[in-house]
Amino acid sequence: MSDRSSPGEVRLARAWLSRAVEPGRGVVYDFVRAVGPVEAARRLRSGGAPDAVAGLADARRHEDRAAEDLERAAALGARLVTPEDDEWPDEPLRAMEIAYSRERRGLGCSSSERGLGSERRIELTPPLALWVRGSVRVDEAFARSVAVVGSRSSTPYGEHVAADLAYGLAGRRWTVVSGGAYGIDGAAHRGALAADGLTVAVVAGGLEQAYPSGHAALFARIGRDGLVVSEWPPDATPQRHRFLVRNRLIAGLAAGTVVVEAGLRSGALATVRQAARVGRPVMGVPGPVTSAESAGVHQLLRDREDAQLVTRVAEIVEVVGSIGDDLAPRAEGPGSPRDCLEPVAVQVLDGLPTVGAVSPDRIAVAAGVPPLTVLRCLPGLELRGLVEATPAGWQLTPAARLPVPR
Amino acid sequence: MSDRSSPGEVRLARAWLSRAVEPGRGVVYDFVRAVGPVEAARRLRSGGAPDAVAGLADARRHEDRAAEDLERAAALGARLVTPEDDEWPDEPLRAMEIAYSRERRGLGCSSSERGLGSERRIELTPPLALWVRGSVRVDEAFARSVAVVGSRSSTPYGEHVAADLAYGLAGRRWTVVSGGAYGIDGAAHRGALAADGLTVAVVAGGLEQAYPSGHAALFARIGRDGLVVSEWPPDATPQRHRFLVRNRLIAGLAAGTVVVEAGLRSGALATVRQAARVGRPVMGVPGPVTSAESAGVHQLLRDREDAQLVTRVAEIVEVVGSIGDDLAPRAEGPGSPRDCLEPVAVQVLDGLPTVGAVSPDRIAVAAGVPPLTVLRCLPGLELRGLVEATPAGWQLTPAARLPVPR
Repeated sequence: MSDRSSPGEVRLARAWLSRAVEPGRGVVYDFVRAVGPVEAARRLRSGGAPDAVAGLADARRHEDRAAEDLERAAALGARLVTPEDDEWPDEPLRAMEIAYSRERRGLGCSSSERGLGSERRIELTPPLALWVRGSVRVDEAFARSVAVVGSRSSTPYGEHVAADLAYGLAGRRWTVVSGGAYGIDGAAHRGALAADGLTVAVVAGGLEQAYPSGHAALFARIGRDGLVVSEWPPDATPQRHRFLVRNRLIAGLAAGTVVVEAGLRSGALATVRQAARVGRPVMGVPGPVTSAESAGVHQLLRDREDAQLVTRVAEIVEVVGSIGDDLAPRAEGPGSPRDCLEPVAVQVLDGLPTVGAVSPDRIAVAAGVPPLTVLRCLPGLELRGLVEATPAGWQLTPAARLPVPR
Repeated sequence: MSDRSSPGEVRLARAWLSRAVEPGRGVVYDFVRAVGPVEAARRLRSGGAPDAVAGLADARRHEDRAAEDLERAAALGARLVTPEDDEWPDEPLRAMEIAYSRERRGLGCSSSERGLGSERRIELTPPLALWVRGSVRVDEAFARSVAVVGSRSSTPYGEHVAADLAYGLAGRRWTVVSGGAYGIDGAAHRGALAADGLTVAVVAGGLEQAYPSGHAALFARIGRDGLVVSEWPPDATPQRHRFLVRNRLIAGLAAGTVVVEAGLRSGALATVRQAARVGRPVMGVPGPVTSAESAGVHQLLRDREDAQLVTRVAEIVEVVGSIGDDLAPRAEGPGSPRDCLEPVAVQVLDGLPTVGAVSPDRIAVAAGVPPLTVLRCLPGLELRGLVEATPAGWQLTPAARLPVPR
C-alpha cells in the first residue's frame, strides 16, 4: 500500500487527505490503496486524479494545513495514527475491510442488508488515518472491545444499565467503545472509567473541541486514561452528516455492539445496523415496554433474527468472546493449520471450491451456514493462511489445498 | 367415543370420573376413549379395568358422589361440560390432542422438548370434562383466546402491563385466559373485565372455594361475566401438584400464551413450556434487566428460538391471529380445498407421502419446516378434509390425493 516515500511524507500525505476529503468515501479509499497516500495526495493537488475522486477533494485541494494539523494535534497531546504505523488496528478493521470490499463488488447479502434505512448510503469504508488522543496503543485498545451505544435522551434506567454493563465489561478487560454523547454514551464511558478500565470515545469532530461541550471534563479524562479517536483534523466541527460516518467506524472497530436504549428513530440503531453489515454481532438490552427509549431496542430484537437479547455482562462476553476465540487460537508447533479451527470455520473452509475464487455468499450456500458467519470466519482463516482474498473473491491457498488427515 | 348410554348416564359417569381419578392421566384418558365414559366408570368401580388405570382410581373408587357433585355445581350456578356437549371446545383442544397422541406414541421432537424441566412428567392429556361457572359457551369463550400469565410476586410494572395488554386484547374480542392467582393473573383478569371483555379463570381447585380467598370477589365477577373453569369437582382443594396439571390446560386451551413477568423459577414458565409442547406460540414481555421478575421472561426469550418478544397488543394479535387465520378461512363454493391455504400449510401438505401414514416429525423433514409448524398446520388441514389422523400417523385423504391445478 505504501510507495517509496519517507515515513514523514506518508504521514503528511495522510494528514492532508484527512482534511481534503471527507472520511468514508470509497472511491478515495480505493484510489489511495491503488497508488499510495503520497501519490494520491499529489495527484489530488495537481488535478491528476480520476474525476470521481478529484471532485470530492476539489473544494479543499488548494489548502495545505497538514503540517499545521500535525502540530496542533501534538499540542493537544494527540497524534495521527496511520496504516503504516505499528499500532494501526489492522485486525479489528479486517472484518470491515472484507465487508467493504464485498459491498463495493456489489455482492448482495439479503440477511445483512435487511432493515437498512437511509444510512444505507454510508459506505463501510475503512479509515485512511485516525487522529488519536491518549497513551494507549490503538490496536491494543480495540483488540478486545465492545461498543455500548444508545440514545441521548436516555432514562435513569438506561444510564444505570449502560454504566453497570460498561463497568463489568471493563472489569473483564474489555474496552468500552462509544460515541461520547450525552445519555447512554456518557454513562458507558463513565462506567468503564469507574472500573479503571479502558474506554474509547470515537467522535464526529476534531479533537480540539469537545462535543458536546458539557462533556469536556469527560473527554479530558478519556483522553488521559483511554483514547479519543477521530477521522477529522483537530479543528473540524461535528457536522450532522459526520455522525453517521462516525457510527460506521464504531461499528467497524468494536467486536460487537450493544444498544442499551434507543427510541424508534435513534441514531444508535444506525450503528447497530452498520455493525450487522460488517458482520459483527448485535445485541440489545430490553427495558420496560412502557418506555419509548426501549421501543427501538425491542423493535431491533423483534425484527432482526441476528440481534441477541442480553441482560448482563456474562451474556455479552459470551457473544463477543466467541468471536475473539475464532480469531485467537492459532496452531502452534507441528500440525496442520486446520488444527484448532472451530467446527463452523471448518465448514466455511470446506465451502470454498478446490479451484477458483468465489464470493462469501457462494461460500455460504456451499457451506450451508449464514453469510454473516462466513464473513466472521474468513479473517481467522486468512490469518491462518488457509484462504486469501483476490479481486474475484476468496480462494483456498496452496497450503489449504494439501490433503489433511481428518 | 360415546357408548349407547343416555346423556344423563354419560354426564354422571364423567362427573364420577372427575372425582375418582386425578385429571391429566394419559392411561385413564385412553381407557375412557377406548371404552366410553359409562363403561370406563363401571369397570373402574367393579374392578374390571386394566391395572394401570385401576390403580389410579383405587383410593376413590368406592365413593359415588357424582349426583351430589352435579347438584352442588348447579347450586353454584355451575355445570359439568363434557365432550358430548355442543359447547365442548373441540377445536381449541385439537392441537392438544395431536400433541398428546404424538407424545404418547413416543415420537420425540427435540425442538419442542428443549428446556423442559420437572414438569416434563406432566402429560398433555386433554380433559375428560370441565366444571364451569358462567353463562358463556365454553367453545365460544376459547375460540379466540390468549393466555396472559405471570408470577404471583409481580411488580407494579408487570401488573400495569398485564392489565393493559388484557384490556387491549379484550377490546379486540380476544378472550383473556389466566389462572386467577395474585399478581399477573389477577391483573390480566381485571384488565379484560375493565374492557367489558371476556375472561376465563382456569383454576386448580373446585368451584366452591375461591383460591386465593382474597380473589373471592374477582372470581364472583369472572363467574358472572366470563367463565371459571376447573377439572376438579366442586369441593376439591387446590393442592400443590394440581397447579402444574392446571397449567397444561391453560396452555392447551388458549391459542397462544403470553408471559408478562416471571422469576427464573416461576410456574408461569412451566405453562409457557407446556404451550410450546402443544405447538402453541409462546410470547414474552420484556422488562427492566434490573428486575428479578423479568429475568425468567428474558431467559425464555434468549433460550427458546420460538419464543417471541412482544410489547403491545397488536404484536400479540399478529402472532395468535395468524394461527386463527390458518384455521378460519375455508374454501367456499366451487374450488379445491387447497384454496386459501397459507403457503406454509401447502408446504406441510406437500410433505405428506402420496400413500401411507407418517409422523409429524417425518412430515417436518419432508416439508422442510419446523415440527411445531407441522403441528400447528395439521388441525387446519384436517378441518379442510385434506389429512386424517390414523393410529400409524397422518395421511392424505382421498380428496387431497386428487391432482389439483397449481
